[in-house]
Amino acid sequence: MSIEDAYKNGLWLQIHLILHEKENKEKLDLSFCLIFLYLQLSISIDSSEGIFTVTSKPKGRNAISPTRTENYPEWYQQVVKAADLAENSPVRGCMVIKPWGYGIWENIQKALDHKFKETGHQNAYFPLLIPLSFLQKEATHVEGFAKECAVVTHHRLEADADGKLHPAGELDEPFVIRPTSETIIGDSFSRWVQSYRDLPLLINQWANIMRWEMRTRLFLRTSEILWQEGHTAHATEEEAQEETLRMLHVYEDFARDYMAVPLITGKKTPDERFPGAVETYTIEAMMQDRKALQAGTSHFLGQNFAKASEIKFLDPHGEMKYAWTTSWGVTTRLIGAIVMVHSDDDGLVLPPMLAPRHIVILPIYKAEDRTQVMEYCENLKKALAGKTLRGMPIYTEIDDRDIRGGEKVWQHIKKGTPLRVEVGPRDMQADSLFLGQRNVENHQKRGIPRLEFLDTVESILGTMQDDLYAKAKKFQLDNIHDITDLATFEAFFAENAPGGFARCHWSPAAMGHPLLQKLKVTPRCLPLNQEPQAGVCLFSGEATTQRVIFAKAY
Amino acid sequence: MSIEDAYKNGLWLQIHLILHEKENKEKLDLSFCLIFLYLQLSISIDSSEGIFTVTSKPKGRNAISPTRTENYPEWYQQVVKAADLAENSPVRGCMVIKPWGYGIWENIQKALDHKFKETGHQNAYFPLLIPLSFLQKEATHVEGFAKECAVVTHHRLEADADGKLHPAGELDEPFVIRPTSETIIGDSFSRWVQSYRDLPLLINQWANIMRWEMRTRLFLRTSEILWQEGHTAHATEEEAQEETLRMLHVYEDFARDYMAVPLITGKKTPDERFPGAVETYTIEAMMQDRKALQAGTSHFLGQNFAKASEIKFLDPHGEMKYAWTTSWGVTTRLIGAIVMVHSDDDGLVLPPMLAPRHIVILPIYKAEDRTQVMEYCENLKKALAGKTLRGMPIYTEIDDRDIRGGEKVWQHIKKGTPLRVEVGPRDMQADSLFLGQRNVENHQKRGIPRLEFLDTVESILGTMQDDLYAKAKKFQLDNIHDITDLATFEAFFAENAPGGFARCHWSPAAMGHPLLQKLKVTPRCLPLNQEPQAGVCLFSGEATTQRVIFAKAY
Repeated sequence: MSIEDAYKNGLWLQIHLILHEKENKEKLDLSFCLIFLYLQLSISIDSSEGIFTVTSKPKGRNAISPTRTENYPEWYQQVVKAADLAENSPVRGCMVIKPWGYGIWENIQKALDHKFKETGHQNAYFPLLIPLSFLQKEATHVEGFAKECAVVTHHRLEADADGKLHPAGELDEPFVIRPTSETIIGDSFSRWVQSYRDLPLLINQWANIMRWEMRTRLFLRTSEILWQEGHTAHATEEEAQEETLRMLHVYEDFARDYMAVPLITGKKTPDERFPGAVETYTIEAMMQDRKALQAGTSHFLGQNFAKASEIKFLDPHGEMKYAWTTSWGVTTRLIGAIVMVHSDDDGLVLPPMLAPRHIVILPIYKAEDRTQVMEYCENLKKALAGKTLRGMPIYTEIDDRDIRGGEKVWQHIKKGTPLRVEVGPRDMQADSLFLGQRNVENHQKRGIPRLEFLDTVESILGTMQDDLYAKAKKFQLDNIHDITDLATFEAFFAENAPGGFARCHWSPAAMGHPLLQKLKVTPRCLPLNQEPQAGVCLFSGEATTQRVIFAKAY
Repeated sequence: MSIEDAYKNGLWLQIHLILHEKENKEKLDLSFCLIFLYLQLSISIDSSEGIFTVTSKPKGRNAISPTRTENYPEWYQQVVKAADLAENSPVRGCMVIKPWGYGIWENIQKALDHKFKETGHQNAYFPLLIPLSFLQKEATHVEGFAKECAVVTHHRLEADADGKLHPAGELDEPFVIRPTSETIIGDSFSRWVQSYRDLPLLINQWANIMRWEMRTRLFLRTSEILWQEGHTAHATEEEAQEETLRMLHVYEDFARDYMAVPLITGKKTPDERFPGAVETYTIEAMMQDRKALQAGTSHFLGQNFAKASEIKFLDPHGEMKYAWTTSWGVTTRLIGAIVMVHSDDDGLVLPPMLAPRHIVILPIYKAEDRTQVMEYCENLKKALAGKTLRGMPIYTEIDDRDIRGGEKVWQHIKKGTPLRVEVGPRDMQADSLFLGQRNVENHQKRGIPRLEFLDTVESILGTMQDDLYAKAKKFQLDNIHDITDLATFEAFFAENAPGGFARCHWSPAAMGHPLLQKLKVTPRCLPLNQEPQAGVCLFSGEATTQRVIFAKAY
């Protein structure tokens, strides 16, 4: 295959191969440079050693197909696949979270768990199965979940004459696999809470839940979900309200500082509340297709579940009272948010604060140089071992797998490894290295002395984290629009319009307006900390001071 | 109530109360001391301040009833309850793991997870549900689990005319809730493994599983179980064998260094193998009633599951081969082992390496001293913040709850908090404190200058960890007996005999011997690293060089 053909096919790997096959390297240097210039490739040339590494791609070609503008939902699936985050399983709607995806989840867990403990919460674990009678204790609650429950009806299997297995041992009372745990945790709380001295009771659970979804999408909507669910009980309404908002802000801080995702925090309109909640608060993130993703919720449950589960306490005056409860949760959906907010047409871009690995060192050598180059890389890894990113260890990997350099580099680009460090024999002699940063345009690398790299690596990663946030924040702000008339609203959300978040005056009478259904737009929330502003509801014409963010949503 | 009555009822709390009610404290000092002497209580007296704390109990009385010798199984349940580790739930066989119990599990997870990652494993997550057809892929496997599977047959609920909920939406193919994940993980492995370059594949999963148990006991045997399951695939039989043993030794090291539990590691006899395994290796621990607890297993699966799931790879010569797989797991049962190996008749004794909190500071004051004493305690807590126990942070809590001092002290004894530090106004003036150590006989406390405590706290906890191990190791060694004739064997395991581990010559012909069933004794394992020794099988009379550990088991 000629270089020209390789280019036409977008195959930079093939180009790499051809270069290796050439013998008379000195002479070819110039001509290759010219070809690369023509092809608009950017390369690192270490030609005296006979090693060429092409890490850029032909302009206008991308590692992910389709691109974001071509087909955003499909682009998302392809990024998840190319980054090796997860895959569909043979069990309907249940995904397999692969090591790189699970590594992100572990970092999310670590950071959130620390924040939960800092705010006084303790972890515990409650049963996977919920008796039907428990689910029925709160009427709105069961109505909300009955349509999507996995039901356990038998407790063993029996083979028929053909050896085919059938359910046997029917249960007296079926169980559902928890879709959420208010009712089963409420049962424990009713025993744990006796006196005002037992309050507040601040519990969190890391668990799997199941909501039988018909249309699923990796991380965004799955039947089995990994999540955390906080459940708390308080002596007063005010304390429970405070807790609900405290945890909403814990999520907001986490999204900003770790996910580099700016949020709109707000209160759900009544039609969007959690089944059984008095108020639901939400964190809403804007994806790059300008749609909203509900990234987490915090519910003020009033006394609804306390009454359903008999969570009562003796107050200091000897009076028996119902507790006030809250619940709040985030799921593996957060990984979907990270993918959709930061990634580009070459794959995943990861905020360094959540990357399972921050730096990959790619040794580049011919067989005779291997020992020396590897030793240099090992020493570099050791020198990086003590480095930290805002208190977290920075993890470095040496990728010495026996696959071609170009393919390897592109794997790391597609996986979103924040920093790539390439070391060849000549770099080694100069005590320097080539640094590729995942969020730099067109994957340009730069040469940097080793010592300078060691001195600045912490700030490089910190700046990368901040830049990702700033970029996402700018995108969010650029795409929130105040809309005051229905025609503009309809045009804003038209099929081929760019869309975004529309902030509009709203009164409860707007709920269920047919235009919303037609446009597939939903009220996302009544943003917090918003000054009341007189106006008329866009849908009902009623006078109101409240404004709601509307958007198409995942 | 008189002190005499209080004593008769074993109510140290009442004694404490009476002391507080006395006015003329100076005069009473001596007489109280005499009474305590008479009652054989050991106390810390800070009487000039009018504060008495009674932390010892009447001799011969215990916080846990029944004691170990009175009724060991019931003692276990009472320790779990008194230590607030877990409780039964309304869902048959599923327990609620309370914060103190879950804190131990979190520490187990942290330590093991670190060891798994050090040995090259990565975490991932696979579906909770397994299609029946998957379970059937390995014949022995399905036979082993069919009798105890929770079966999901429907995916929603419908209310009848009376509002009663019924399962609806029957599934085409039922699912079982994973009792273990070989088959569903094998399905992913069949896609992930293509070439010898993809091997070894080293995966671990932290998850919940379900095995429908009829007779359950907190931590030891529950229907829902939290565990980790390692699943690996290798290019050669030898590598898979090595991995099986490597992970067995990871468990052994962990049990020794963290749980302070000595183990017998060995190979299971064929009748005790995991369904579908070629070899099962086990870690067996001896409880204080001299029964065995299987604390974890590591399975060499040969090519059985690779063939069932089509896990194949192209070797370097271009030949397609089946992989060799292993699996290995430990569960929340480890917490049961910790409870049963170390605890005493006053409650839980925790190895410091796994204690959720290492030190509790108990401020003792009258209202007017509160500010000063609390400030002193806060400073002490701060001074302890940087301390470590073998690389792990030492956690300190100040327990300033408004409950009586004696009750509070006993709560911490029953929960197994390794160190209790009491600080009153007089201690504060002397810049010293009273130190109670959970594993010291009769809960004697000792006065110690604050600075000395800060200097030695790390070694105190380290020594405590080592002492617990040494004590358990001695008990284990004292209770392993070589038995060479059936009559001795029968007497050794008779109903009222102390029992223990019997090491006996064994040949496969011994399997299923009626005496074993009669005595409720099982072969635990063929210990590793045991010199072959000529002898005859105790049960079959066959010549053999193999010896097996027999015991009654949980």
